[in-house]
Amino acid sequence: MSPSAHRPAGIHLLADFYGIDAGKLVATSDIDALLRAGAEAAGARILHSHFHSFGDAMGVTGVVLLAESHISIHTWPEFGFAAADIFMCGNAQPQLALEVIAQAFGATSRIVQTIARGGASPL
Amino acid sequence: MSPSAHRPAGIHLLADFYGIDAGKLVATSDIDALLRAGAEAAGARILHSHFHSFGDAMGVTGVVLLAESHISIHTWPEFGFAAADIFMCGNAQPQLALEVIAQAFGATSRIVQTIARGGASPL
Repeated sequence: MSPSAHRPAGIHLLADFYGIDAGKLVATSDIDALLRAGAEAAGARILHSHFHSFGDAMGVTGVVLLAESHISIHTWPEFGFAAADIFMCGNAQPQLALEVIAQAFGATSRIVQTIARGGASPL
Repeated sequence: MSPSAHRPAGIHLLADFYGIDAGKLVATSDIDALLRAGAEAAGARILHSHFHSFGDAMGVTGVVLLAESHISIHTWPEFGFAAADIFMCGNAQPQLALEVIAQAFGATSRIVQTIARGGASPL
């Protein structure tokens, strides 16, 4: 499942969530656990994670690195907003990670963009 | 420059590079230094970085976390391919990071998608 074990084609979901309770967007331990749960739901293998808090009641920025690529997140509790990226190659299923994260956040709305990466060279 | 110091609007560049010399895509120290140079060119503040090698002559996956969001990369030397993400909010200039990375890789072709994130809520 390493990058060198499969072709570099993958799906990248860019998910912007609006209307989240601020309390869900401030604790690095909660966000770390959530993204790890998403990775596991997707069938991905976790290599590393790191989350940074900008201070009490402030946002979090962080990433879970995967053998299949990554899940990242940046939160703005003061706007009830989170921007998550779920990029997975190989056989992992990023949509399953998205649903885990979406269910936990309970956002009032979201915009999800689905981008195909690493297909055939344009040349 | 923290997420809580600016609104959550940002630009996310998804850059797929093709035709890179394999030797440029295997050393975690080189890739770390390159992404840090990109972050600095963009005027971003680095919080953390982590890079994982999948083995000798194999790919690298990693991230530089920024106060303004992140730069991530996943490389496949056996395909001469790298998928980079440059996501920056606030006043940082992601295009400048892209140019630093592109110049170092010397890819024969690239596909760059530019995505606006975190604008007004869809509701």
